[in-house]
Amino acid sequence: MTTPTPTPPTNSFASDNAAGVDPAVLDALAAANVGPALAYGEDPWTARASRAMDELFGRPVETFACWGGTGANVVGLASVIEAHQCVLAVDSAHIVVDECGAPVRFSGSTIQTVPAVAGKFVPDAIAPFAQWLGSEHHPQPAVVSISQATEMGTCYSVDEIAALCDRAHAHSMLVHLDGARIGNAVAASGVSVEQMVAETGVDVMTFGMTKNGAMYGEAVVFLRPELARRAAFVRKQAGQLPSKARFVAAQLLALLEGDRWLHNATHANDMARLLAERVQGLPGVQLVHPPEVNSVFVRLPLDTIETLQRWSFFWEWDLSDAMVRWMTSFVTTPEDVDAFAAGVATLLGRR
Amino acid sequence: MTTPTPTPPTNSFASDNAAGVDPAVLDALAAANVGPALAYGEDPWTARASRAMDELFGRPVETFACWGGTGANVVGLASVIEAHQCVLAVDSAHIVVDECGAPVRFSGSTIQTVPAVAGKFVPDAIAPFAQWLGSEHHPQPAVVSISQATEMGTCYSVDEIAALCDRAHAHSMLVHLDGARIGNAVAASGVSVEQMVAETGVDVMTFGMTKNGAMYGEAVVFLRPELARRAAFVRKQAGQLPSKARFVAAQLLALLEGDRWLHNATHANDMARLLAERVQGLPGVQLVHPPEVNSVFVRLPLDTIETLQRWSFFWEWDLSDAMVRWMTSFVTTPEDVDAFAAGVATLLGRR
Amino acid sequence: MTTPTPTPPTNSFASDNAAGVDPAVLDALAAANVGPALAYGEDPWTARASRAMDELFGRPVETFACWGGTGANVVGLASVIEAHQCVLAVDSAHIVVDECGAPVRFSGSTIQTVPAVAGKFVPDAIAPFAQWLGSEHHPQPAVVSISQATEMGTCYSVDEIAALCDRAHAHSMLVHLDGARIGNAVAASGVSVEQMVAETGVDVMTFGMTKNGAMYGEAVVFLRPELARRAAFVRKQAGQLPSKARFVAAQLLALLEGDRWLHNATHANDMARLLAERVQGLPGVQLVHPPEVNSVFVRLPLDTIETLQRWSFFWEWDLSDAMVRWMTSFVTTPEDVDAFAAGVATLLGRR
Amino acid sequence: MTTPTPTPPTNSFASDNAAGVDPAVLDALAAANVGPALAYGEDPWTARASRAMDELFGRPVETFACWGGTGANVVGLASVIEAHQCVLAVDSAHIVVDECGAPVRFSGSTIQTVPAVAGKFVPDAIAPFAQWLGSEHHPQPAVVSISQATEMGTCYSVDEIAALCDRAHAHSMLVHLDGARIGNAVAASGVSVEQMVAETGVDVMTFGMTKNGAMYGEAVVFLRPELARRAAFVRKQAGQLPSKARFVAAQLLALLEGDRWLHNATHANDMARLLAERVQGLPGVQLVHPPEVNSVFVRLPLDTIETLQRWSFFWEWDLSDAMVRWMTSFVTTPEDVDAFAAGVATLLGRR
Repeated sequence: MTTPTPTPPTNSFASDNAAGVDPAVLDALAAANVGPALAYGEDPWTARASRAMDELFGRPVETFACWGGTGANVVGLASVIEAHQCVLAVDSAHIVVDECGAPVRFSGSTIQTVPAVAGKFVPDAIAPFAQWLGSEHHPQPAVVSISQATEMGTCYSVDEIAALCDRAHAHSMLVHLDGARIGNAVAASGVSVEQMVAETGVDVMTFGMTKNGAMYGEAVVFLRPELARRAAFVRKQAGQLPSKARFVAAQLLALLEGDRWLHNATHANDMARLLAERVQGLPGVQLVHPPEVNSVFVRLPLDTIETLQRWSFFWEWDLSDAMVRWMTSFVTTPEDVDAFAAGVATLLGRR
Repeated sequence: MTTPTPTPPTNSFASDNAAGVDPAVLDALAAANVGPALAYGEDPWTARASRAMDELFGRPVETFACWGGTGANVVGLASVIEAHQCVLAVDSAHIVVDECGAPVRFSGSTIQTVPAVAGKFVPDAIAPFAQWLGSEHHPQPAVVSISQATEMGTCYSVDEIAALCDRAHAHSMLVHLDGARIGNAVAASGVSVEQMVAETGVDVMTFGMTKNGAMYGEAVVFLRPELARRAAFVRKQAGQLPSKARFVAAQLLALLEGDRWLHNATHANDMARLLAERVQGLPGVQLVHPPEVNSVFVRLPLDTIETLQRWSFFWEWDLSDAMVRWMTSFVTTPEDVDAFAAGVATLLGRR
Repeated sequence: MTTPTPTPPTNSFASDNAAGVDPAVLDALAAANVGPALAYGEDPWTARASRAMDELFGRPVETFACWGGTGANVVGLASVIEAHQCVLAVDSAHIVVDECGAPVRFSGSTIQTVPAVAGKFVPDAIAPFAQWLGSEHHPQPAVVSISQATEMGTCYSVDEIAALCDRAHAHSMLVHLDGARIGNAVAASGVSVEQMVAETGVDVMTFGMTKNGAMYGEAVVFLRPELARRAAFVRKQAGQLPSKARFVAAQLLALLEGDRWLHNATHANDMARLLAERVQGLPGVQLVHPPEVNSVFVRLPLDTIETLQRWSFFWEWDLSDAMVRWMTSFVTTPEDVDAFAAGVATLLGRR
Repeated sequence: MTTPTPTPPTNSFASDNAAGVDPAVLDALAAANVGPALAYGEDPWTARASRAMDELFGRPVETFACWGGTGANVVGLASVIEAHQCVLAVDSAHIVVDECGAPVRFSGSTIQTVPAVAGKFVPDAIAPFAQWLGSEHHPQPAVVSISQATEMGTCYSVDEIAALCDRAHAHSMLVHLDGARIGNAVAASGVSVEQMVAETGVDVMTFGMTKNGAMYGEAVVFLRPELARRAAFVRKQAGQLPSKARFVAAQLLALLEGDRWLHNATHANDMARLLAERVQGLPGVQLVHPPEVNSVFVRLPLDTIETLQRWSFFWEWDLSDAMVRWMTSFVTTPEDVDAFAAGVATLLGRR
């Protein structure tokens, strides 16, 4: 007799963007819907959000609200690169794999990829490309782009980021940080975003909001204001200048207020750790590495993946390695984790 | 003795995007924030919005939700043009003047401009460029892009659009319609959007939401599905694919429900007509043309403009012609109109 | 009885690029074919040509040999413009009409056109676009591009160029000069290229070689070396860096040697003047304006054009105005002119 | 007592483009300089060259003469790819490393690189990217680009090309072949270019002329005419349409006449083999692999490279592996080889 199939969890483990919106963000949107406000960022919410970001980073930064993550990466990169230059990134980077070539098409510059080491770009990968500097035959390396947390759910340490920045700066290259999940990385690190990003020498970053409770919106932050010379024009030309901008700024303010962005991220990370504990040791489940942030990578028997997906959907990561990804978010509850782990146990137990 | 300066209106006449969000839209956003939903358009709201657009246009269309107006124009144009081709448009078109070159940079194609006649593109403007067809020396004309309503607040009649489509199609060119204010144009016309856009032969359009009560979001509509072959990729590459897409679809559904988009637009048009009535005949105010939609273009004594702007801000349109633009929106009240007209009368009366 | 149809001229009046190669250039090519030479400009011919251009312009300039005219305009413009900026040019400019959109596609920037006055860009055309400076909504005007001689065969005076440069520089804009026929303009002017281009303030130019006797090759000249910062990379990326570069440099040297470029251009101009004299007054031939350089624009009875083209081919210019263009070159002989004029007289006489 | 330093060779081993021009090509250029000819390819030489290429490939092909190698690759790729698609190539490909990003900037599409195996792209490298097909998040793989001969001087066998084409076509992808040294590869293979390129299924190629005796010019060949739909426009827009096109066609005809291109290539290959024989076994010289075409890759003691370069220049290939490249060409003589080998022996013997 078969064990009955358990009820799937209420919240999805497919992705952190399968979650909805933090109620505090929804409240902030409603509260911002009072009276008129000039469009395109000439409103008081945008000014306040800008000051809040200065405080967060412990210095005057330049903040440009954008619509989404791909657009924010385009704006950050295209603001600091010229078309005959190139970006260095790992081959699994979001800007390489998951943006349909957006940064390249818009900027005209190429991305040169190197193999990732645990999802990360290692400083030694710069040297072979640095040899190209000065020769008109080669795209000129100008930016190293990293993701924090990485697409593999790993995190650079503060020292690793600092070392990478030092190596890049030594060749007059800049460092761009795709922080779609910066909250999760900061929450996991025990340091502040000021220490992790500003003090290590990162030049420009995407400060992710959507995966951490916003409805939409990401902020591009130039850590040194002189790098933002072209940014306003690039943002507009890239179709990333929000019209009723007060509503992006209001979300950013709501997330920063009382460190809600960090609480949300910490919760998501905790749920991932809980999930890893619950599934570790289940027959057929092999944890790829202990979760550092809000993703759990596991290997599963190939013939069980589809059954599990039908029961409670999640994305495959690399079928050639039987690897899938489970993600938690600010809405994931311990009950969701228990239900999901129970379902995995039951469905794998039927083989 | 001076008349006391009147209280400025509560709502701004600066632009229709200075307004906030229709409460019904806010409610719809909150209602959509229930449970998980796959991102990037694989959610039930997006499917429902797609069917609603099919009904609106009276045929199967392809609808792609985008973040904003510039991005939607980029997606619509870049989906149907190749880089060696060109777009024909009037020199005052939004895609020429107000998008920092976005469609050109992204698509690689050029925009050839012709002088506007009452803000409009006239069919005879096609012929000189049609001569270029087939010769490798010239950009190949492939799309005529028009705005409805135009940037000058005028509207093409249904017959004018049909004539333009016929002329364009005769040269195998397509017609793109920038409908950032399509609601205002349809509301003013007495015909349906199906009659105005689908039956005239328009090929692809931006269906504007933001200026008509949405928080954000515009929809690109391909009237003939085969034109959308590249659209999904172009939208992603242009940074216009919303992550938590359900919230764009929910807004579109809220605007279509009970023809709210038309009621909002009708109201804005009415307020513009009321404002024109109120200021017509005031000494120093010259109406450029009777308002067709929700904008009132007037000429003012040059030395009064700054004083008026300080009192209740609005944008200059063409200072070399002493022309300014006042806009109404779904939030404008008759009281706003009265207060604004009274202020104009008072402040101009002081000269 | 019909007059017998005269023998067509040996050389064509279709275009100056229907001519072959100056024998001195051919000799120089053969002479350069001795021994090895590093490719891509690291050869002694290129170094000598660079010094010869410094002398020609009376100051240190930066010279970049390119393959052809369209490519040279792309390299000149793309080296000094950013993608969010725009170029101002007349609507009949070669970069607008005759390069299939090359500068736009490569640079990502737009070209804003203004109506030509006698083929020329007038300084007052800058002001309306200068108002856009600083606003992220508009492409930022950065370069005024003119052709000397113009596509209409007219020439800017030295004072006109200087006035245009002053106006552009006052708005921090640069001036680009498409000199595909710079030789003809200088030859017609009585001043030196140093006076016409360097002392007026032009920033970057295409120094035309092909239409003046070369087999191929055009030189991009940056009048102020700091403007050439990106040029080497842009040239390579634009596919305009000649491999066996010595053979372009050898041609440039041959043309500069003993002012051969000016002798060739003067001869072509003389032949155009002679042709104008010969056809002026012929029934049915209306000279559009006296030739300033090596093109003769005439209006002809529409029904004679095809017959004349079959007899000795030339290009239509604007059939809506019954206008055609006849061009002379360094190979045109007085006998060619006489034969052509005689044919025109005979064939038009038959109507 | 030191052996006297030997006299360096007359011809350079730096590159095959350090050679000049085949005298037969120079003669053809002079012979083509007779009378007028319409520009831009509307001349009899171009028509004849087009027919000659049809014969060479044993079928009707579409041939587009271009200026140079980078431009020809841009034209070939950009004619068949769309901006949201991507090219697959090895990380050492010329289009990746040596064209300053030209194909990417012009086409807007990305290049996804895979590690080379003996300089070659292996069919299995397609599968991971083929998984991206249909998903809007990823650049869509559309073209596999290979070099024949490769940058490492190796050659694909006919079977290898056919297998690659089969695999690519199975995913509706095309195969582009960069044939900057196609002559050397065909000469080394014992098969015809028809067998190597046309019968294997290659879709579009660069047919190299410059490195094989031309002064300038490369031909883009579309093996299936329907692929050339956009090519004329793309060539013009890419700045690759020669003005006095007869002179490119005349060179192509001269190289094809009596199989001169193959004789030149065979000679260059022979000289490379001779050089390899001469230096093999010299103390300190390690041959990387036996030369297949006209390049000899060797490892040298690091501290001798500069001395050797000063004596007779050549390019480093990969200093981290102590590897340099010596190239032969149609002008290399056995005496050059003897002199070079003698110099290497002497200068290395002095350590």
